[in-house]
Amino acid sequence: MTLDEARARDAADPLRPLRDRFVLPDGVIYLDGNSLGPLPRATLAANRDLVERQWGERLIRSWDEGWMGSPARIGGKIAPWIGADADEVIVTDSTSANLFKLIVAALRRDPARTVVISETGNFPTDLHIAEGAVACVPGGTLRAVPRDALADAIDDRTALVLLSHVHYKTSARFDMAAWTRRAHDAGALILWDLSHSVGAIPVDLNGAGADMAVGCGYKFLNGGPGAPAFLYVAERHQAQLANPISGWMGHARPFAFTDAYEAGAGMERWRAGTPPMLAMAALEAGLDAIADVPIEALATKSAALFDAFAAAGDAIGLKCIAPRDPAERGSHIAFRHPHACAIMAALVERGVIGDFRDPDILRFGLTPLYVGFEDVARAALALAEIVADHRGVAPPGPIA
Amino acid sequence: MTLDEARARDAADPLRPLRDRFVLPDGVIYLDGNSLGPLPRATLAANRDLVERQWGERLIRSWDEGWMGSPARIGGKIAPWIGADADEVIVTDSTSANLFKLIVAALRRDPARTVVISETGNFPTDLHIAEGAVACVPGGTLRAVPRDALADAIDDRTALVLLSHVHYKTSARFDMAAWTRRAHDAGALILWDLSHSVGAIPVDLNGAGADMAVGCGYKFLNGGPGAPAFLYVAERHQAQLANPISGWMGHARPFAFTDAYEAGAGMERWRAGTPPMLAMAALEAGLDAIADVPIEALATKSAALFDAFAAAGDAIGLKCIAPRDPAERGSHIAFRHPHACAIMAALVERGVIGDFRDPDILRFGLTPLYVGFEDVARAALALAEIVADHRGVAPPGPIA
Repeated sequence: MTLDEARARDAADPLRPLRDRFVLPDGVIYLDGNSLGPLPRATLAANRDLVERQWGERLIRSWDEGWMGSPARIGGKIAPWIGADADEVIVTDSTSANLFKLIVAALRRDPARTVVISETGNFPTDLHIAEGAVACVPGGTLRAVPRDALADAIDDRTALVLLSHVHYKTSARFDMAAWTRRAHDAGALILWDLSHSVGAIPVDLNGAGADMAVGCGYKFLNGGPGAPAFLYVAERHQAQLANPISGWMGHARPFAFTDAYEAGAGMERWRAGTPPMLAMAALEAGLDAIADVPIEALATKSAALFDAFAAAGDAIGLKCIAPRDPAERGSHIAFRHPHACAIMAALVERGVIGDFRDPDILRFGLTPLYVGFEDVARAALALAEIVADHRGVAPPGPIA
Repeated sequence: MTLDEARARDAADPLRPLRDRFVLPDGVIYLDGNSLGPLPRATLAANRDLVERQWGERLIRSWDEGWMGSPARIGGKIAPWIGADADEVIVTDSTSANLFKLIVAALRRDPARTVVISETGNFPTDLHIAEGAVACVPGGTLRAVPRDALADAIDDRTALVLLSHVHYKTSARFDMAAWTRRAHDAGALILWDLSHSVGAIPVDLNGAGADMAVGCGYKFLNGGPGAPAFLYVAERHQAQLANPISGWMGHARPFAFTDAYEAGAGMERWRAGTPPMLAMAALEAGLDAIADVPIEALATKSAALFDAFAAAGDAIGLKCIAPRDPAERGSHIAFRHPHACAIMAALVERGVIGDFRDPDILRFGLTPLYVGFEDVARAALALAEIVADHRGVAPPGPIA
């Protein structure tokens, strides 16, 4: 793809106008929205309103004027992106804390099922948190196995299967419906981490019959650095599962100030402490900024951007580790190269921001909301030049 | 105290200029900073810098430019307010989540000690979270008893004594050194919830020999609605205690992306997920705005404001439930009245913002950073008129 061809494709792209909804710094090609989404222009006003009017002017009264209901309200705005009903999603805490809550809750469902099955090489916090969560339930055990051993590992002692829908390194995607069936066939629940898929590819939790999910607000939802995370529990499980981090905001009547905890109705019980409103408002603004954009159109353009980048990678001779079939991956592309760390540093130096993942992965987010074909073409040109500079150079030794 | 006398006291008050550091809406006397501190003027610029430059322009690069270290850096700014060393405090999650982590950690220290002792009527989230935390440790039990039964309840099965330094309703303060000794004499640890004392009264955790503490950023530290909370662990315990919510940000090397969890050094292990940077930056700005203010001067003025309000309450015939001796209380005042709910609604209608606490408590924060003697005099005048309106009216029945 030449630069002229890329510009022609941008000119013909019906999603091209969406780019104007984001602040994108001059001289930067931003291919890291899968790690931190850029600032939506509308967030500027929403943030100002939150700080200056809601906090500055209305002060404590804002709790009754929209803050108290924000976790459920913003959850309702995430629901259409993940195939959930509005009352199945709540925004609260971090992905890590939400994983903890749900893993403990799942393990407590049936004392005969004590094992959590996950994948080696899953996003670290999923495994780390699972390690901590299983220690909170008698007999609880985490068993992480390679992907090709997963199906056999799920059995009648499995309480929960914990999987990331899209892999943070390779972009490989699990078939959500098939793996949900596999868990259910063994009598287990399944918990999907949607951090690398929500807002990037179509997700249909209820269509797949999923049980639980968590996900991240700061990647494709553009909710700001460290944006609050979300938590989904299928309606059929909501009355049975309990939150181990039983804080006052999840109480049925938080302002009755009773000594005894009484779990709130529906998803309210998954709240713990007071919601961080500056962060909540930014996430809501991020969601509002893309509420009218159909995920199918994003996925189609993402696939086209991927194909263009993959072809350039082939021409450079880079090893692409993301699946070529769009149905089998998320919206980022990843290459392996022994000099990945140095190559990414050189790219960033030239204003092409992707990221390096230990030990040898170059990762580029191809977020169709604001990434265009010319961006991909320019990034590929820079990549080709930098890779050429590293040709014939011995790979670095292992990092001490 | 007449209005003229109050104005004269304000004119003579050396802390009076601090008021200009805060945004205070016209027509409002704000006596609820013990629930939500007002907006510091400097936070406006800090928030803009975070959103527009750090997020908007620097994007992902900001993680290396200050965001990753923010929990420890901001913790270090809280340390002088609580008598801790800078490396004993970290800012992360909510007070609720931090209570959960520390209670579980304390219970795991010695399997022979399975009981958490707390006070009935403690702030609800402390009891609710303790209820959830004890269920995560074999044999874990929460025993909440009235204050006068606390000393006898602490024994050789006590793992942890969990107390709020200042009571959220009555303002009554525990003698931190004496109760820490009482816990230690029985071989137990003590965890102080400082939410209603940090920034309001002198706190000396290390002077008292305390073990653990948590506290809130959105009250007297003016960190914004739902500001991140903090967590303190005395240096001597840091290597032994483990965080049950073992998320990737608490890992020794978060970006090594290893499958196995390895607890970070010092306080880093108490982190869980990605810090919410909009909220973190506002808390840091709140702390910076008062970093030069000596807590002793605040406490002295707070006591004078209290005495003025208490005298007005006496004249009105209100029953003050806060201790009269400043050494025995925090910085808010509280009265009981059968019509408390209606009285507070009428006060708020007139621009005097305090709060009502179920079932019959009127609570007023007397935060000396921005509350003056004229504010107290005017609030007392409005209160006198409204209470007079309720004289002879039958008290409401219990709320259904």
